[in-house]
Amino acid sequence: MADLAEVVAAIAARGAEATDRGRVADYIPELAKVSAGHFGIAVVTAAGAEHVAGDADTPFSIQSVSKVFALVEALCRHGEGVWDRVGREPSGSAFNSIIQLELEQGRPRNPFINAGAIAVSDLIAASCEPGAAIGAILARVRALAGDDSIAVDAAVAWSEAVTGYRNAALANYMRSFGTIAGPVDATLSVYFQQCAIAMSCRQLARAGRFLAAGGVQDGVVIVSPERARRINALMLTCGHYDASGDFAFRVGLPAKSGVGGGILAIAPGRASIAVWSPGLSPQGNSLLGTAALEQLAQAMGWSVFNPDL
Amino acid sequence: MADLAEVVAAIAARGAEATDRGRVADYIPELAKVSAGHFGIAVVTAAGAEHVAGDADTPFSIQSVSKVFALVEALCRHGEGVWDRVGREPSGSAFNSIIQLELEQGRPRNPFINAGAIAVSDLIAASCEPGAAIGAILARVRALAGDDSIAVDAAVAWSEAVTGYRNAALANYMRSFGTIAGPVDATLSVYFQQCAIAMSCRQLARAGRFLAAGGVQDGVVIVSPERARRINALMLTCGHYDASGDFAFRVGLPAKSGVGGGILAIAPGRASIAVWSPGLSPQGNSLLGTAALEQLAQAMGWSVFNPDL
Amino acid sequence: MADLAEVVAAIAARGAEATDRGRVADYIPELAKVSAGHFGIAVVTAAGAEHVAGDADTPFSIQSVSKVFALVEALCRHGEGVWDRVGREPSGSAFNSIIQLELEQGRPRNPFINAGAIAVSDLIAASCEPGAAIGAILARVRALAGDDSIAVDAAVAWSEAVTGYRNAALANYMRSFGTIAGPVDATLSVYFQQCAIAMSCRQLARAGRFLAAGGVQDGVVIVSPERARRINALMLTCGHYDASGDFAFRVGLPAKSGVGGGILAIAPGRASIAVWSPGLSPQGNSLLGTAALEQLAQAMGWSVFNPDL
Amino acid sequence: MADLAEVVAAIAARGAEATDRGRVADYIPELAKVSAGHFGIAVVTAAGAEHVAGDADTPFSIQSVSKVFALVEALCRHGEGVWDRVGREPSGSAFNSIIQLELEQGRPRNPFINAGAIAVSDLIAASCEPGAAIGAILARVRALAGDDSIAVDAAVAWSEAVTGYRNAALANYMRSFGTIAGPVDATLSVYFQQCAIAMSCRQLARAGRFLAAGGVQDGVVIVSPERARRINALMLTCGHYDASGDFAFRVGLPAKSGVGGGILAIAPGRASIAVWSPGLSPQGNSLLGTAALEQLAQAMGWSVFNPDL
Repeated sequence: MADLAEVVAAIAARGAEATDRGRVADYIPELAKVSAGHFGIAVVTAAGAEHVAGDADTPFSIQSVSKVFALVEALCRHGEGVWDRVGREPSGSAFNSIIQLELEQGRPRNPFINAGAIAVSDLIAASCEPGAAIGAILARVRALAGDDSIAVDAAVAWSEAVTGYRNAALANYMRSFGTIAGPVDATLSVYFQQCAIAMSCRQLARAGRFLAAGGVQDGVVIVSPERARRINALMLTCGHYDASGDFAFRVGLPAKSGVGGGILAIAPGRASIAVWSPGLSPQGNSLLGTAALEQLAQAMGWSVFNPDL
Repeated sequence: MADLAEVVAAIAARGAEATDRGRVADYIPELAKVSAGHFGIAVVTAAGAEHVAGDADTPFSIQSVSKVFALVEALCRHGEGVWDRVGREPSGSAFNSIIQLELEQGRPRNPFINAGAIAVSDLIAASCEPGAAIGAILARVRALAGDDSIAVDAAVAWSEAVTGYRNAALANYMRSFGTIAGPVDATLSVYFQQCAIAMSCRQLARAGRFLAAGGVQDGVVIVSPERARRINALMLTCGHYDASGDFAFRVGLPAKSGVGGGILAIAPGRASIAVWSPGLSPQGNSLLGTAALEQLAQAMGWSVFNPDL
Repeated sequence: MADLAEVVAAIAARGAEATDRGRVADYIPELAKVSAGHFGIAVVTAAGAEHVAGDADTPFSIQSVSKVFALVEALCRHGEGVWDRVGREPSGSAFNSIIQLELEQGRPRNPFINAGAIAVSDLIAASCEPGAAIGAILARVRALAGDDSIAVDAAVAWSEAVTGYRNAALANYMRSFGTIAGPVDATLSVYFQQCAIAMSCRQLARAGRFLAAGGVQDGVVIVSPERARRINALMLTCGHYDASGDFAFRVGLPAKSGVGGGILAIAPGRASIAVWSPGLSPQGNSLLGTAALEQLAQAMGWSVFNPDL
Repeated sequence: MADLAEVVAAIAARGAEATDRGRVADYIPELAKVSAGHFGIAVVTAAGAEHVAGDADTPFSIQSVSKVFALVEALCRHGEGVWDRVGREPSGSAFNSIIQLELEQGRPRNPFINAGAIAVSDLIAASCEPGAAIGAILARVRALAGDDSIAVDAAVAWSEAVTGYRNAALANYMRSFGTIAGPVDATLSVYFQQCAIAMSCRQLARAGRFLAAGGVQDGVVIVSPERARRINALMLTCGHYDASGDFAFRVGLPAKSGVGGGILAIAPGRASIAVWSPGLSPQGNSLLGTAALEQLAQAMGWSVFNPDL
C-alpha cells in the first residue's frame, strides 16, 4: 500500500505543473474570472486524519457538488418521499437537457442533474419557513464541515440568477407538471444560492466524511448506513452527468463534480476526497481533478471495484 | 457476519414460495414457454467455494448476460480499441431504443444495450474465420465455467432470429454508419446465438468468478486487475438497462441481467453470484432475482458501497 | 356552384344540432367556463359581402388565431428579418413541445407554434416603447376588423399568465439562446394578452379578409401580394399544429386554429371565414369548426387544390 | 399573364447557365456518376399541351418522386385503408430519420418520407402475386405517361440495395411493429426498384397530368376529384421532407422531389410540371429545380395561394 501523504503530495505536484488544464467555465460570468492555474486536494480519512496539498484552503464555488448536501437535507426532511419527485437513473443526456423532462412528463431522472436538483431545492423549501431553505442547506454544510464561516458567494449567486435562463426553463417546465410545487422564482433562488456556496477542498472533504464512514461523523449519525450506501450509489451512477460511466470506468469511486472545478469523491470506509482545478473537460468536469482522482484511486487501491484480495 | 450457506438457503426458500413472481418474457416465443415457478441461486466465492440452492443446476437461456462474456472476448481480441466502437455511458433509454443511435451518429452508448452488444459481436466476428465467432464466444464461456457441455439452444436462437426485427433494425442502422463492418446477417447470427447460450446458475456463477477475483481464476490471468475493475464498473452503471441506477441504489453490486430471468452479480473480492427466476419486472429484469440479490448483499454486507468499517 | 348564403345557413344548423361537440379546453381555467354549445360562422368575401349564422356576433378568446395578426405586425416592422428568428417548417410535434427547441438550438420551427409566437411577440416588443407592444397588436387587429371595440379579455390573460408555466419554460429556454432578446416576463405578458384578445366570428372574418384578397383591404395595401401568399402558405402547412397535414388533406384551406375553439380560414380570391365552437378534438382544434370548414370548402369548391376546371 | 412557352424557355436558359448548381447526391454510388450540368423542364397543361426545354428528354432516376405514383397505386388497391398504416402529417425531421418511428410506435408520419414509402410498397406487395408489385407500379407509371419504354434502372436499384442500410433499418423497425407485414427483403426490393425508375421530364410531367386535372386524364378517371385534391395536399405539406414548409412558402405548389434531382409539381387546373437538375440543396432537393419552379409559379401566377383576382 502506498503512503497516502506521499501520494497526495505527488498528485498536487503534478497538478501544479500540468500544462493542459482544460477550460474554465464561462457560461456563468462570475466563474469565468477564476484562474485555471489553481489545483488543490484534501483527503480526510474515515477516522478523521487529514492530508492536504496545493490550494487546499482556497475557497471556490462548489456549484453542483452542493447537490449532494441538498439531497441529504431533503432526505432528512422528507425521507424516501424524495423519490416520488425525482428518479434514480442516469440521464443519458446533458446536465441541462430538457428533452428527458418532456418524454417523461416532467419527472427528472436523478437529483444530480439540474432539473432534479431544482426539484430537491423545492422540496426543502416546502418544509421550511419562506426564505429559510438556503439557510437550512447552509447550516447543514457548515455542520458537516464543522466550520461556520462557510457562506454563499453573493456575486456568483447573482451572476447565475441573471443568466440562468435554462434553469428557469427547467423549473417552469417542472412546475407545469407539479414536480415543483412552490413559486418558481423562490425555488430558483434557493438553487442558485446553494450552487454559489464557496468552500475549500479541506472544508469539502470534511463535509463529505460521513459518506465514507457509513453515515456517521464523530459519533453522530448523519444518515443511516443504508442511506449512506445509497447516496454513494447515486454519486457513482449519476455524479458526473453524461460522463458518469466513464468516471466509474476510470476512477471507480462515487463522486460529484461541479462546474466550478471541484469534485467530491468518496472511498467507502477509507476517505472523503476533495479536489479542485477550475479547468474543465468538454463534458464539464474538472480535467485535472478527474486525473488526480484516477491517480489517487490507482495508487491507493481505493476503487470500489477493487477486490482487496 | 451472517453465514453464507444459511443466507443462500433462506433466500432460495423465499424465492420458491413467493407469489408475486413477475411476468415471463414473451417477445421471444421460445422463452415464453418457461415456467415462472423456477428459482435458482449459486454463489461461488473468490476462493472457489460453492453454495447453491433451488434450481441451481437447471439450464436457462442466459440472453443478455452473455454480453459480459462477449465483451471479455472482444477486449482480449481488440484491447481498448473496443471503445472506438461503443461508449461506456448509461443509455438513459430502453434496451432496444434506436433514438440514441440517431442522435449520436450510430455509436451505441455501451456494450450492454442491444446495439452495443451487436457491435461487440461484430468486432469478434471481424477477428475470426467466417462462422467461427460464436464458437469463440462459446469456447470462452466453457473455459470460464470449466464445463464443455454448455451449448447454444438452437430453438431459442432460431426463435430470436425470426422475430428479431428490432435487433435487425439496430444492426442495419449501425451498418449505415460503419459501427458494424461485417455482413449484417452474419453479425446478427452471432448475436442471436450468443444470447441463446443455455447455462445453469452454477455454471454462470463459476464463469463469472474471475471478475470477483481481480481477473484471475485458479491462477490463470483472464484479464488484468484493471480490466476486471472496469468491467465491474460497466456492469454497475449499465448492467440493468434503464434500471441500472435503481439496481445500484438497492443492491450495490455490479451485475448483468437477461430477459431469460438470469442475473450474474459480482461482489469484488468476495463472490460471483448467479440467480435465476424467469418472471420479470416491468423494466425487464428478474423480479425475484433482483430481490434475492438485494437480500444477499444486505445480509452479507457485500455492497461495493459498504465501508467495511 | 352552391349558393353561399344557403351553405352557411345549413352548416350553422348542423353545428347547432351536433351531439358530439368535442371537449372544451380546460388547461386555461378561464376558458373552461365557456359552454360547448356555441357555434358561429362568418364568411366575408374578398369583395366584402358578409354571410353569418349562429353565434357569429358572440366574442370568444381567439387564442392562437392571434398569431396570424402578430406575424403580420412583426413582418411590417421587421420585414424578412423575422425569419432570422423563426423557421417556416411544420414542427412535427405538439404545440407546446420543447424537444424541438433543444435539438435545434433554441430556434422555433415556425411562428404558429407557441415558441415561435413568443419569439414573434418579442420581436414586436423590440420595436415598440416599453409596454406598447400589446397596444400595437391590438391596434392592428382593430384596424383590420374595422372595429375599435375589440379588446383583451383581462381575466383570460391573467388566467393564462398564472398557469402558463410551459410557455414560461419555452420563453426562458429561447432567451438562453438569444432567440428572444427582451425581458422574459415582458415578452410573455405581450404573448398572454394577444392570446386573450376577444373577437366574434364576424370581426375575425373581417380582419382576415386582406389575406383572401392579395394583401389589400378596401383599397389599402396591408401586405404585398407575395407576402399574403406566403402567410397563407404558412397557415396551410403549420396552422393546426400537429394536425396541419390532416386539415390540408380534408379541408384544403390555409387556416389557423385556437384553443378557444375559433378557426380563421382563407379561401384565396374568395373569402375569409371564421368559425367558432369551443369543443376541441384531441389534437386541440375545434371539432365542429373543422367539420364546418370541410363542408364549406366541399360545397363551394374552395379548396386551394381544386382545379376549377 | 405571361406566355408559357417564353417563360419555360427563359427558365431553361437560366438553368443552363447557372454557376451555383448544388451538390449531386453521393450516398447512392450510381447516382454520384450523373453530371451536375443537366437541366431540363417540361410543362404539360391540364388540357395536354406540352412545353419543354433543356434536357427534357433525358431519363434520370426519379427516386422519391416515385412515391407519388406508388401512393396512387396503393390507394387504388386499398382505398382509405392506406391511412391505417401511414399518417398524413409533416414529419418535422429528416427523410430517413428513425426517431419519429420509435416515438410513434412504428407508424410513419406520411407516405413521402422513406419509412412511409416503404410501408406503401409493402401494402402494394400484399395485394399482388409474389414478385409482381414492382411490375404493378411500373405499369401504373407507364400508363400514366403513355410510354411503355419506361423502365427500372437495374444498376441504380442494385446500388441502392447494397448501400441501403438505413432503409433496411426503417423496414425492420416497422416490421417489428407490424406496420409492414411482408418479408422485409421483398418489400425493400420493391422500394429500391421503384426509386430506380428512370424517366425524362417530359414523361414525368405527362404522368402527373391527372393530378392537375381533378384526377382525370384524357377522359379516364384515374382517381376521384377528392382524391386528387388530397394527394396534392399531401405533396404540399410533405413533398419536400423537412423543407416542405419553405417550398410552400416560396413556390406555393404541391410537389414531390427526389434525390436524383427531379421534382414533379402540380398547378391544379393549370399544369403538371417536371424539372430536373441533379445538384441538390443541403436539404436534399434540386437546387436549380426549386429555383425554376419558383420562377415559373411567380411568372404564371400559379401558386395555389394566388387569389386570381
